[in-house]
Amino acid sequence: METLLNFIDENKERYIKELVELLSIPSISTEPENAKDVQYCAEWLSKHCTSIGLENVTIHQTPGHPIVYAEWLNAGADKPTVLFYGHYDVQPVDPLNLWTNPPFEPTLRDGKVFARGATDDKGQVFLHLKCLESWLKTKGTLPVNVKVLIEGEEEIGSVNLEQFLEDNKEMLKCDCVVISDTAMYKKGQPSIVYGLRGLCYMEVHVTGPNRDLHSGSFGGAVQNPLNALAAIISKLKDEHGRILIDGFYDNIPDLTPDERAGFAALDFNEEEYKKALDVDALFGEQGYTTIERLGARPTLDVNGFIGGFTGNGAKTVLPSKASAKISMRLVPNQDTNDIAAKFEAYVRKVAPAGVTIEIENLHGANPVLVPRDGVAVQAASKALERAFGKAPVFTREGGSIPITLLFSTILNAPSVLMGFGLNSENLHSPDEHFDLDNFHTGIKASALFYEELSQLSA
Amino acid sequence: METLLNFIDENKERYIKELVELLSIPSISTEPENAKDVQYCAEWLSKHCTSIGLENVTIHQTPGHPIVYAEWLNAGADKPTVLFYGHYDVQPVDPLNLWTNPPFEPTLRDGKVFARGATDDKGQVFLHLKCLESWLKTKGTLPVNVKVLIEGEEEIGSVNLEQFLEDNKEMLKCDCVVISDTAMYKKGQPSIVYGLRGLCYMEVHVTGPNRDLHSGSFGGAVQNPLNALAAIISKLKDEHGRILIDGFYDNIPDLTPDERAGFAALDFNEEEYKKALDVDALFGEQGYTTIERLGARPTLDVNGFIGGFTGNGAKTVLPSKASAKISMRLVPNQDTNDIAAKFEAYVRKVAPAGVTIEIENLHGANPVLVPRDGVAVQAASKALERAFGKAPVFTREGGSIPITLLFSTILNAPSVLMGFGLNSENLHSPDEHFDLDNFHTGIKASALFYEELSQLSA
Repeated sequence: METLLNFIDENKERYIKELVELLSIPSISTEPENAKDVQYCAEWLSKHCTSIGLENVTIHQTPGHPIVYAEWLNAGADKPTVLFYGHYDVQPVDPLNLWTNPPFEPTLRDGKVFARGATDDKGQVFLHLKCLESWLKTKGTLPVNVKVLIEGEEEIGSVNLEQFLEDNKEMLKCDCVVISDTAMYKKGQPSIVYGLRGLCYMEVHVTGPNRDLHSGSFGGAVQNPLNALAAIISKLKDEHGRILIDGFYDNIPDLTPDERAGFAALDFNEEEYKKALDVDALFGEQGYTTIERLGARPTLDVNGFIGGFTGNGAKTVLPSKASAKISMRLVPNQDTNDIAAKFEAYVRKVAPAGVTIEIENLHGANPVLVPRDGVAVQAASKALERAFGKAPVFTREGGSIPITLLFSTILNAPSVLMGFGLNSENLHSPDEHFDLDNFHTGIKASALFYEELSQLSA
Repeated sequence: METLLNFIDENKERYIKELVELLSIPSISTEPENAKDVQYCAEWLSKHCTSIGLENVTIHQTPGHPIVYAEWLNAGADKPTVLFYGHYDVQPVDPLNLWTNPPFEPTLRDGKVFARGATDDKGQVFLHLKCLESWLKTKGTLPVNVKVLIEGEEEIGSVNLEQFLEDNKEMLKCDCVVISDTAMYKKGQPSIVYGLRGLCYMEVHVTGPNRDLHSGSFGGAVQNPLNALAAIISKLKDEHGRILIDGFYDNIPDLTPDERAGFAALDFNEEEYKKALDVDALFGEQGYTTIERLGARPTLDVNGFIGGFTGNGAKTVLPSKASAKISMRLVPNQDTNDIAAKFEAYVRKVAPAGVTIEIENLHGANPVLVPRDGVAVQAASKALERAFGKAPVFTREGGSIPITLLFSTILNAPSVLMGFGLNSENLHSPDEHFDLDNFHTGIKASALFYEELSQLSA
C-alpha cells in the first residue's frame, strides 16, 4: 500500500485543483434556472470517471436531474462488490450577502476550501473518485469490484432514485453500499454513523381577508393571518421543547441504558458548542442531553416564514396571507406519512376561526438504524483507524439520508456511513467549506477500506 | 352658488384628466429610489396651485421630502382663515402582482380611478384644489381666506412637519384646519370623523445561532429564532383578542352609554362586511361590537414578518435570524411612547432563552378626539348635507392622523375631518381606487363649506 499512499500524497495539490473545478459548477437542484448547470455537472463527472479509468460510464436521464453511473468490475466474481453512492447537487446559496467569497468561486483559506457543496457532498464524492484513480494508476487494479452511483436530486428528496434502483436492480447488485455524506464526530476523531433521523417537511399557508387591508381601518375587526400563523406555530411545541402534535411520540422506544451510555461516552462539550454558535443557552426537549436530542430524539423547526410588508419602514398593512415552512426530524418507529397526517390534523385543530388553512407536504424520509456488525462496517472501522490513527466512534446523526433505506429494501445491501465532513462546515449555510486534511486523509481511508474489505471477505 | 356648481359639473371630465396626471407620479415616500419622484410631485403641485390662481406658492425643502404651501388671503381680515392640509406622498405598491393595472398608470373602471394614492390622499387633496379653482374662475374671489399645506411625508410619520409648523406659526395662523384624509361612513352617507386612533409601530429582531444551520445536524439543540418569534407574537394577545402587554389598557376609559348608542345607531352589517372580505368569521376583542373595536378600542397586528428560507421547495435550514413588524392602534389616554416602552419590556420578559432580541420604534402617533361643536364642524355638516342630500354621521375611525394634534397644540386651531374616501377603496393595498362621484360631489361639498363657514362666522 506504500506506493498507493505515497501517490495520494504526491498528487494532493492536483486533487484539490480538480475539486475546485467541480465546486465551481452551480448545480443547485431546487432552482429551475440552474437545471442546465446540474446537467453540465453530470457531464463533467462522467467525463472525469472515464478519465480515471472507470468503465461503462453512463448518464441516466430521469424525469428530473440525471444520475451518473460508472463501474470497475474486473476484480473477479470471488471478490465483493461495493456500490459507492453520493450526490452532486447542492443546496441554494441564499443569503448570498453572508458569503465571504461567491459560493461558486471556490476559495482556499486556513486549510479549507469554501464553496457551496464543498462538504455536502461534492468534496466527499470526489475523494472516492480520487481513491479509485490512485488505485488504478498505481496498481492498475482494484481489490474489489466497484460501482459508482452519483445522483443530482438528493437535496430535493431523491425523487427519482427509487424508480431508478427498481429499474436497474441487476446493474446495481452489490454486497454493500458506501456513503460519505455524513460528519466525523470531530476533527481527528473519525466516526461511523449508524443512525439517521427521518424528515417530514410541511408548508402551511394561512389566508385571512381576501386582500391586504389598512391596519387602521380594519385592525381589530378581522383575524390577522400572521398573528394566526404565529399562534399555530407556538402551539406545535411547549416551552420545554416537547412537541404537542397529537400522537407525535407514539411508538418511539425509550433510549436504552446502553444507548445513553454510548452518547455519554462522547465527550460532548456544551460550552464549546454554545460559544461556536454565539448563543447564551442551548434549548431542546427536557429530559435529554444535547447529544441525545440531536441523535436520538425527534424535533420540530420552522425553516422559514414570510407574510405582509417586509421592506424598509412602517407600512400599516393588515396582510391577507402568511406562510411557513415547518419540518420535523423523525427517529426510528416514526413514519413520515403518518407524521404528516398528524401534523395536518393538529394544525387544523388549533387554527383560529377567521382564516383558511392550506397544507402541503414538501418532502419526507423515514429514519434509519444501520446494523453495526457486518464485514463492511468492520472494514470501514479498520480503514478509518489506519488512516486517522484513531478508532472510529459510532454515532447517530441528526440529518437524514433516506436512500440508505432504499438500498436495504430494494438492493438488499447494507450501507456503511463513512463520513469525512464536520458539522461545523456550514452545510446548507453561507461559507460552506470542507477541511482539506480530511479530504486528503479521506482518500487514503477509502483506499484502505477497499483493501480491508477484500481481505475480510477472503 | 348656481354658477359655481354648474361650473364644477361642466369641468367634471377635465378635473378627472388632471387627477389622472397627478396620480401617475410615483411619489412613494418610504422608498429612497423614489425621492426624485416625490420632489417632482411637489413641483407639479406648486405649478398647479399657481395656475389656478393661488398666491405666494412655495416649495419648502425639509431634511426629508418637501412641503408645498400656497394661499389666497384677499377675503379680508374680517373673514375667517381656513388652513387646508393634505399629503401628496403615497404608500409602497407591493405586492405588485395583485394590481389589475400598474399602480402609477391610473385607469378608469366602474366610475372609479384605480391608482396608488387615489383615495389616500391625492384624490382628496386634488378635489380641494379644484374647489378653489372653481370659486376663483367663476367668482374671482373666495368667501374666506385660504391657506394650503400639502406635505410629502405623511406615510412616514410626518417626521419634519412639527418643526415646519413651529418655524412658520405666523404664516400658518388660521381659525380652523380642514383635512380630507378619512373615509365616509359608506357611499351616499357623508361623515365627519371626530375620533382617530393613535399608532405605535415597532419592529422586533430575533437572533439565534450566529449563522444559518443544517436543521438535521442542529435541530433540537438550539433555540430556533422563528419558533421563538412566533412564541413572542402569540403571547401579545390572548385568543379573545385581549392584548396581554402589562399595563396596555391603563387609563382607557370605558365607552359611555352615549358612545355605545352612537356606534349602535350606525347600521353596521357584519354579514356584508364578512362577505366583502371573504372571511367566515370576524375576530376582535371580546365584549365589544366590531364597529366599537374599530373606532374606540386599541388593537395589535403583525404587519409583516420574515425569516429563514422562503423560496421554492424544502431547504432544511435552522435559520439564524427572524424579524416582525408589529403595530398597535391606540385610543384616547394612551400615549405612544408609554406603549412603546411597555411593548419592549413585555417582549423582553416573554422572550425565551437562547435568542437575543433587538427592538426598534419605527413610528408613533397619539390618538385624537376632535371637539364636535364649533363653527367649522357646523359649516362642514351643513355643506355635506347640501352636497350629498343627507346629514353627515359623526364617526370615530381606526386610522391615525397624528398631525391633527400638532395643529391644535402648535397652531391652536381645531381640525375638521371631512373625508370623501371609502374604507373599501383598498388604501395601502393593491388596486387602491377613488370613487369619481365622491370626487365630484366632494368638490361641491368643499365649495359649499367655504360659503357656510363665511356665513356662520359673519
